[in-house]
Amino acid sequence: SNMVKVAVVGGEGIGPEVTAQSRRVLDWFAAKRNVPMTLREAQYGLIPYLATGKVLPEDTAEAMDEADAILWGATGGPETTEVPAAARKAGSLLGLRSKYDLYANLRPIVASPALSASAPLKAEVLDGVDFVIIRELTSGIYFGEPRGIETLPDGQRRGFNTEQYTTNQIRRVARSAFELARTRRNKVCSVDKANVLETSVVWREEVIKLHKEEFSDVELTHLYVDNAAMQIVREPRQFDVMVTGNIFGDILSDCAAMASGSLGMLPSASLGPVDRFGRRKALYEPVHGSAPDIAGKGIANPLGSILSVAMLLRLTLNRPEDADLLEKAVQTALASGARTADIAEAGAKKLSTVQMGDAVLGAL
Amino acid sequence: SNMVKVAVVGGEGIGPEVTAQSRRVLDWFAAKRNVPMTLREAQYGLIPYLATGKVLPEDTAEAMDEADAILWGATGGPETTEVPAAARKAGSLLGLRSKYDLYANLRPIVASPALSASAPLKAEVLDGVDFVIIRELTSGIYFGEPRGIETLPDGQRRGFNTEQYTTNQIRRVARSAFELARTRRNKVCSVDKANVLETSVVWREEVIKLHKEEFSDVELTHLYVDNAAMQIVREPRQFDVMVTGNIFGDILSDCAAMASGSLGMLPSASLGPVDRFGRRKALYEPVHGSAPDIAGKGIANPLGSILSVAMLLRLTLNRPEDADLLEKAVQTALASGARTADIAEAGAKKLSTVQMGDAVLGAL
Ligand SMILES: CC(C)[C@H](C(=O)O)[C@@H](O)C(=O)O
Ligand SMILES: CC(C)[C@H](C(=O)O)[C@@H](O)C(=O)O
Repeated sequence: SNMVKVAVVGGEGIGPEVTAQSRRVLDWFAAKRNVPMTLREAQYGLIPYLATGKVLPEDTAEAMDEADAILWGATGGPETTEVPAAARKAGSLLGLRSKYDLYANLRPIVASPALSASAPLKAEVLDGVDFVIIRELTSGIYFGEPRGIETLPDGQRRGFNTEQYTTNQIRRVARSAFELARTRRNKVCSVDKANVLETSVVWREEVIKLHKEEFSDVELTHLYVDNAAMQIVREPRQFDVMVTGNIFGDILSDCAAMASGSLGMLPSASLGPVDRFGRRKALYEPVHGSAPDIAGKGIANPLGSILSVAMLLRLTLNRPEDADLLEKAVQTALASGARTADIAEAGAKKLSTVQMGDAVLGAL
Repeated sequence: SNMVKVAVVGGEGIGPEVTAQSRRVLDWFAAKRNVPMTLREAQYGLIPYLATGKVLPEDTAEAMDEADAILWGATGGPETTEVPAAARKAGSLLGLRSKYDLYANLRPIVASPALSASAPLKAEVLDGVDFVIIRELTSGIYFGEPRGIETLPDGQRRGFNTEQYTTNQIRRVARSAFELARTRRNKVCSVDKANVLETSVVWREEVIKLHKEEFSDVELTHLYVDNAAMQIVREPRQFDVMVTGNIFGDILSDCAAMASGSLGMLPSASLGPVDRFGRRKALYEPVHGSAPDIAGKGIANPLGSILSVAMLLRLTLNRPEDADLLEKAVQTALASGARTADIAEAGAKKLSTVQMGDAVLGAL
């Protein structure tokens, strides 16, 4: 069938709360804009663990396996400690990224002028910020072997991990960056630590090689990761597409969150390889985590999750007009003063998670 | 003798220019405040390489070996490419850090109210920022083995590095952090990625162990490195002492540079173990690099180097009043409007490197 299959997995902490709002948004697009999709909700985390002994029960695994797109909420927090480490690991988000080979993690950083009052950066620094970090998500030090903890002959303990990249791993994520840049302002900045790490030397050489062979029309620059962290704060407007490895991307994208106004606003897409039918498995999730301190209070910001739905509309469903429509509705809601606690100025009225969902649906 | 031996090594790029100004400051303290020290200047980099075949010639190595404190300028940039990699490596800064076991790298981040006009962060975010990042400097992924580049059976290349920490390596740098915190606001924040890396699991466990055993009076918190990068931008005032591993410290301290107003302002001290005479080898250097784009123009900001002299006065010479005097002179110069190009507002008068040196000496 032509129906696109979407698995909706709220997960833990504030995940289910924010995902409930993006679910409403998905329903709206299915009903009002005839977006051809079937939704399947599934549980993840402590609740299914208590019922089945698995954080990722069979039903959820099946829903995710068969889905074209997964809308993911969040995982982690104190709930984690109630689940034994082995059970936790068996169904971990890192394991899912790996299982579905979701190697290209896209994190758009777009400043919302409406939020500049509550942002730490000056309005003139935020103004016009619009870039995408592409983080390699299935290799690097997150997955490198050998790894572990050992006891040394003198009784000390030693922890060790392996950072590593092969040329194919570098090439495919760099390709995603160059291709995306061509649809934007045609600039790629590759970030590494080639003055210290051999892994980064190979990274940089392979990016240069691919650029020369296939993308010499795209402007390519390189930054060391320490300098990149500074430049993101100093002048975030300079970037269009930034591509980097797994751990550097993890750090830089949180650093960049402040260049957008708030972490609670940031969506992400994690894309797998294109299969022979031209399809590409994808997982969409807000960049924020499970935020255990505010879970259950109904005050979390659902916009990171709702903007992830816009990425789903654009990338999996190939509905750019609908994606634009949703992104504009979010801006309209913000411009009309809708604020959850995390983005509210002192003294301003604070909407609940559901009320922010209402505000976006009202603007659609 | 009671004389403290200081080796002054300007190095490459803007290093010699900024170091010439901190040399004047050192001379002032020797002459006017009777600070008991002998200075020995030595060369490093391309110039001695062309004369001797070594970036670190024997004379320089000897000066550094016998010194209690090294005042270092900068290294790197295009000059690097004129020196073969092997010769470069033989005398590298990383090698020196390792040779002298300079494991505790202190990077104070203090906001200058005078600079808030040219800073990317809002004045109310910068206001009152005063913390120290202690970066472990002689282990971690910078030095971990195995490392290298290999060709795989299928013809691909693979780069790999080893992140690693032993409990002793963690313990001694954590000790530096707890001890420093006791002289300040008594708070330590330890930064790791213990939700992913075994190295970080050992890091966190050992920090907790040392805290329990010897420093339970100090407030200890933990952050994941991605969250730390964000918090440094979001609300830098929350930190007092932050302690972390080598690569995380490299990235976070550049990110934090913007929380001080400018990279050009930041000093650092790298400290070795305390020997049986109570002495501790130290290398002082500005956090900024060789800045090849502005080298030789006489416009670099010498304040990072001059404030490194203040750290030298405080930590090696044990002259806190003199350190305070120098830090106040820098603030006085800034308050009176002295600005090099990197910290000048649009339209403001820009001082040369030498003129900024004059301004600080004038304020002393
Ligand atoms: C929760 C954690 C394992 C994860 C990561 O480090 O990838 C998170 O920080 C993220 O960025 O998605
Ligand atoms: C030049 C480079 C090797 C160095 C580092 O990464 O340690 C620099 O960035 C620093 O922070 O001193």
